[in-house]
Amino acid sequence: MSPTERADALIPLMTLEEKVAQLVGVWVGADASGGGVAPHQTDMGSGPEWDDAIRQGLGQLTRPFGTAPVDPVAGARSLAASQDEIVRASRFGIPAQVHEECLTGFAAWRATVYPAPLSWGASFDPELIEEVAGRIGRSMRAAGIHQGLAPVVDVTRDYRWGRTEETIGEDPYLVGTVGAAYVRGLEGAGIVATLKHFAGYSASRGGRNLAPVAMGRRELADVVLPPFEMALRLGGARSVMHSYTEIDGVPVAADESLLTGLLRDEWGFDGTLVADYFAIRFLERLHRVAADAGEAAGIALRAGIDVELPTVDTFGAPLIEALKAGTVDEALIDRALRRVLAQKAELGLLDEDWRPLPGPAEEVRLDDEESQELALRLAREAIVLLRNEDGLLPLAAGRKVALVGPVADDPMAMLGCYAFPAHVGPHPEHGLGLDLPSLRESLQGLVPGLAYARGCGISDGDTSGIAEAVALAAESDVCVLAVGDRAGLFGRGTSGEGCDATDLRLPGVQAELVQAVLATGTPVVLVLLAGRPYALGGEVDAAKAVLFGFFPGQRGGQALAEVLTGAVNPTGRLPVSVPRDAGGLPATYLAPPLGRRSDVSSVDPTPAYPFGHGLSYTAYEWSDARVQGGSTQWPVDGEVAVEVTVRNTGERDGAEVVQLYLHDPVAQTTRPEVRLIGYARVPLAAGESARVSFTVPADVTSFTGTHGRRIVEPGAVELRLGRSCAEAAATLPLRLTGSEREVGHRRHLRAPAHIDRNPPEGRG
Amino acid sequence: MSPTERADALIPLMTLEEKVAQLVGVWVGADASGGGVAPHQTDMGSGPEWDDAIRQGLGQLTRPFGTAPVDPVAGARSLAASQDEIVRASRFGIPAQVHEECLTGFAAWRATVYPAPLSWGASFDPELIEEVAGRIGRSMRAAGIHQGLAPVVDVTRDYRWGRTEETIGEDPYLVGTVGAAYVRGLEGAGIVATLKHFAGYSASRGGRNLAPVAMGRRELADVVLPPFEMALRLGGARSVMHSYTEIDGVPVAADESLLTGLLRDEWGFDGTLVADYFAIRFLERLHRVAADAGEAAGIALRAGIDVELPTVDTFGAPLIEALKAGTVDEALIDRALRRVLAQKAELGLLDEDWRPLPGPAEEVRLDDEESQELALRLAREAIVLLRNEDGLLPLAAGRKVALVGPVADDPMAMLGCYAFPAHVGPHPEHGLGLDLPSLRESLQGLVPGLAYARGCGISDGDTSGIAEAVALAAESDVCVLAVGDRAGLFGRGTSGEGCDATDLRLPGVQAELVQAVLATGTPVVLVLLAGRPYALGGEVDAAKAVLFGFFPGQRGGQALAEVLTGAVNPTGRLPVSVPRDAGGLPATYLAPPLGRRSDVSSVDPTPAYPFGHGLSYTAYEWSDARVQGGSTQWPVDGEVAVEVTVRNTGERDGAEVVQLYLHDPVAQTTRPEVRLIGYARVPLAAGESARVSFTVPADVTSFTGTHGRRIVEPGAVELRLGRSCAEAAATLPLRLTGSEREVGHRRHLRAPAHIDRNPPEGRG
Repeated sequence: MSPTERADALIPLMTLEEKVAQLVGVWVGADASGGGVAPHQTDMGSGPEWDDAIRQGLGQLTRPFGTAPVDPVAGARSLAASQDEIVRASRFGIPAQVHEECLTGFAAWRATVYPAPLSWGASFDPELIEEVAGRIGRSMRAAGIHQGLAPVVDVTRDYRWGRTEETIGEDPYLVGTVGAAYVRGLEGAGIVATLKHFAGYSASRGGRNLAPVAMGRRELADVVLPPFEMALRLGGARSVMHSYTEIDGVPVAADESLLTGLLRDEWGFDGTLVADYFAIRFLERLHRVAADAGEAAGIALRAGIDVELPTVDTFGAPLIEALKAGTVDEALIDRALRRVLAQKAELGLLDEDWRPLPGPAEEVRLDDEESQELALRLAREAIVLLRNEDGLLPLAAGRKVALVGPVADDPMAMLGCYAFPAHVGPHPEHGLGLDLPSLRESLQGLVPGLAYARGCGISDGDTSGIAEAVALAAESDVCVLAVGDRAGLFGRGTSGEGCDATDLRLPGVQAELVQAVLATGTPVVLVLLAGRPYALGGEVDAAKAVLFGFFPGQRGGQALAEVLTGAVNPTGRLPVSVPRDAGGLPATYLAPPLGRRSDVSSVDPTPAYPFGHGLSYTAYEWSDARVQGGSTQWPVDGEVAVEVTVRNTGERDGAEVVQLYLHDPVAQTTRPEVRLIGYARVPLAAGESARVSFTVPADVTSFTGTHGRRIVEPGAVELRLGRSCAEAAATLPLRLTGSEREVGHRRHLRAPAHIDRNPPEGRG
Repeated sequence: MSPTERADALIPLMTLEEKVAQLVGVWVGADASGGGVAPHQTDMGSGPEWDDAIRQGLGQLTRPFGTAPVDPVAGARSLAASQDEIVRASRFGIPAQVHEECLTGFAAWRATVYPAPLSWGASFDPELIEEVAGRIGRSMRAAGIHQGLAPVVDVTRDYRWGRTEETIGEDPYLVGTVGAAYVRGLEGAGIVATLKHFAGYSASRGGRNLAPVAMGRRELADVVLPPFEMALRLGGARSVMHSYTEIDGVPVAADESLLTGLLRDEWGFDGTLVADYFAIRFLERLHRVAADAGEAAGIALRAGIDVELPTVDTFGAPLIEALKAGTVDEALIDRALRRVLAQKAELGLLDEDWRPLPGPAEEVRLDDEESQELALRLAREAIVLLRNEDGLLPLAAGRKVALVGPVADDPMAMLGCYAFPAHVGPHPEHGLGLDLPSLRESLQGLVPGLAYARGCGISDGDTSGIAEAVALAAESDVCVLAVGDRAGLFGRGTSGEGCDATDLRLPGVQAELVQAVLATGTPVVLVLLAGRPYALGGEVDAAKAVLFGFFPGQRGGQALAEVLTGAVNPTGRLPVSVPRDAGGLPATYLAPPLGRRSDVSSVDPTPAYPFGHGLSYTAYEWSDARVQGGSTQWPVDGEVAVEVTVRNTGERDGAEVVQLYLHDPVAQTTRPEVRLIGYARVPLAAGESARVSFTVPADVTSFTGTHGRRIVEPGAVELRLGRSCAEAAATLPLRLTGSEREVGHRRHLRAPAHIDRNPPEGRG
């Protein structure tokens, strides 16, 4: 029997209450004694008593590990014990599907914390991200988890938004390819990946969390939706979580055209659609499109939501009542239930020989050396060198180095908001549960005589420590000045969910610290450890060198120290623009010409550092770019292959990121100046060269035309091989030939790269 | 013969060149000698030679008065002489239709400058605005002008936008009613009013001029379009100018669905649609949706644009070529021509007895005492008292008053960007051409011993004068601190076209000046003379009193001085919110609940002063609010009448602005917390009371539903009678009864107010 057939066999046997019980979760935390899970008190009120919750069955278990610090082995035991209770308590003996957050690793105490998603984007290395996600997935699987609430494939639209750190960047192609890689890794480990947040969340007005989204259908189709489609088709994600926001007046949770019309009917998605936490109730309380909880439940079900999370609320008594009153159709319940049960069948939860854990609880290890090494590899690839005047970096031996700044000795500055220690908040009695060296701790072994001053806090207004930091910088040969964010939830940090910014000035008095240290005249290496780009024009423009680490994870301090001292050659590239001005937002690189001009407005949106930018300690030469076959004709249903040679002409091994951009000079709708359509991370030893080629289907040039359909439009285009979106090493003019072609389901969503290497002479 | 019949009789007789010549303008300036007009050099290149321009006829003359300083009498003579040349030069002898800007009065040297549009909004007095526009129109008519490029009925969406000063405010109902009143005044004087900018211009991304607009169809329909519809239906405007911007990828100038489908076919508009200056060429050069000028011309004509302004460009040789090549259909030319000629016929330009001026040129007077008095009346009504702690205002006699600040002695601070002196820029050899007293000049006659220090400039970084200002404030009993903007074009000012802001900090070092003066402890009256709201939280929150003047015009200094000293009791109300924070934009009061919450984001969008707010030197008591007839049932196709008594309980005469807001607690799409649906400015002598009633058709509750159609939705609503959008004096719950009703052409766009006065006892 197929999973759907098994679901269909069960459904007619179930009571209304048993059906609905499969569609809800209970938010629990694992008991530290290993005795079971306990319902978790939330801001939205308490959940049901445990015995009541499981009497008719229980569909979902919410966050057993990510709620409070519990030893992983005890946690796995607790979870297993609770699953046994669930199975025993009800007629059909169906275990719960258990989900947990996993954006920067399994969100559990004592689990390795990997770099945050902006770092994934900065690596331009989907293969590595797939490996990371695979490792995360296996650790979750071992602990009895079935579903991970990641990745976030929202495209960054406004850097002020606190959740910018959770995104992979501001380009849909980068987000889609890297996001799909993460999905493949997680799904490959047997964990259901959940795409968040479908759709539009990142474009909330003013960057304020949950604020309404003003957006037309073309922007939605061309910028916001592609990563979801890519992560479904190229990654195989089996779950989707909707967005909290409204778009143009319609809350996504109520939008049948998006959640069913597009996602199910057009894209053919057959997995589960889960509610963001509390979001169905928000239809009544925040969006006010439902008069009561029963109506909210009905609207959500009709729109296409299958599962209420985190805990039973509108899908409890209010939905049962609405069903009995006939205002909600039981067929909608059956539709959601079929998807939920089919997924459970797929996961083996309906099998006779099902066990709550795949192996012994004693063997659950979440922070082994291999995981940490992988986190380190990603951190090394993800640190971006934005500027390096006078070869200030790597730091020359024998110089007197001052380390200054509020994040210089703060281990928490390495962690994104969904890392357990940042997410769950301080549990001093339990400790961090991690070996988490700060930049200072990592650097002091490598830089003898390293002196340190904090200077100021991250977000407070206290300037009393600045003088000491200035004095230290003044008496040093070089000053490493580390500024940035502390990730946290809802006002507990300067980045993260609910921690939005009004502008892109550094938080607190950090800009004052930067200005004061720069004024000493001591050469400054500015290090940003942050969850969003901060404005790097004006006051901070005088730094000789600038490094950006997007919450580089548990071993981020080591990676940064290695880059600073030269043990590692930086290879990261910006997944977002870094603006010059703190205001004037939103503005990302993906804007049509009038979004980027400085002659029609006194506000110049040109960024300080463009998307895709990143320097190296070696040098790369690009040459011989051409279209294979030599023809400049490109049929609207055909492919072209373009290629370029990249040579490492410097003394050090490194990796160049070859970026392929499309420029469409005239189109029926306004088009971005350029947009990314391909990239390849090319490791190159000193002296080595490689011929990098891209096969580009004409479909990747498609966009939403004036009439709202996706088309490939004939006419002149340019393929630009670039070091960043603003720096083209080669421009290849082409002409799309034929008639305007409508593109339905896009079979080709990628321009795959191929790399032929030539080892350096004398090494080969 | 009707105007259209006269047009239809001419068209078949005309050559292609003669037809096209009617659809273009030439930008000219009047000759100071009265000898004629001369083509004006523009940034986009030179126009044609005059003789060439008029050989086939010439449809339009652009800005004869607003281009360079010329005496009005000489200007009128020049214009008349040129019209005679135009008539003589071509076969049909059709004079040009002459247009000029008139947003703050006739944009001519030596013409009265009225308060800027935000002041119109602040007055909440459409009758007065109609009177102002009538006077402006008559002055233009006398000088030989036929068409005025006003009003701007864009709804403010982002205060950073430099053209915020040109809008009437952030509420569509206020903009629509006041805008329609301006149109009635202008049209009543025989001048064609031109609605700008259809549509969406004010919502450009980041508030940057001409940047793309991200907007869905519901926001467009419910917020942006209503003022245009109101100004057409209730005002009778005969011309519309399109917006430069794109909306969701489609430049408005290329959008047939908006310019023809909605405007012509649905709304029935039969006037002329004129291009914004250079905007057709922008389709090629900036939007890049046309490959060349001919294609741009064809796209614009097809979309529905009739006239190219300011000067012949794409509608010249490129269009003729495209017509001859058959890529543009001559029927499109005829369609545009019919509208242009019909309007000329209506204006009498095709009459045998046509004369270029209605009377003798010698009698053209643009700045008479009556005009100035009218400008003063409006300024008095438009100044808003935001705060007045400890009764600091009006200034008590005998106190030592310091006047400080960069706009305190700057007459230009009274003028909006479209006032001739601000718009055309400095012509020192000609002088301002106006008696234009600064605040200092106006105040010093009323406040003996008034001391003054500038403190700092408006936008430069020089802080050297702050100390002197601080010293002066410190030794005074009270300090009037005047800060704000200088209006100008494209970087020549801090407000106005092309002068956008990245945030809402006061320009230059003015915030430093404010902080320093506040730190003296001397009570401060903060006076803003500005074209946008600046953030009034944080550093400037300690001012005891705050007055806001939105470029109050030529007699604005006097009005401000009278308010400060108590000769005038302030009655203005905010047409925009005044934010607390300089960032976090955009945010106007018209947001659904999630746009206004502070518990889901660390950024609190609550403004410092809400839309509609304004204080007085007297006090008003509101009482006995009720629904007439007492029923709370409101049929979806019916009306309700609500009423309230307002009494002036203080010692001084004044005027209360009774505001009627709609709150819709549950709807199928997200709705703003409240929105304005009626208002009445109620002058009340001390002790006087009035019964104010509003008749509210259910149609005004309509909005765009989930399926994109405008509906009246049954269910609970509240009418709130308020002092501002945030302060309800009375709440009247009602229930809309019946079935959901679709509203096509809205017959009722207003909730008309009726006022029954009761004179104070002992006076009546």
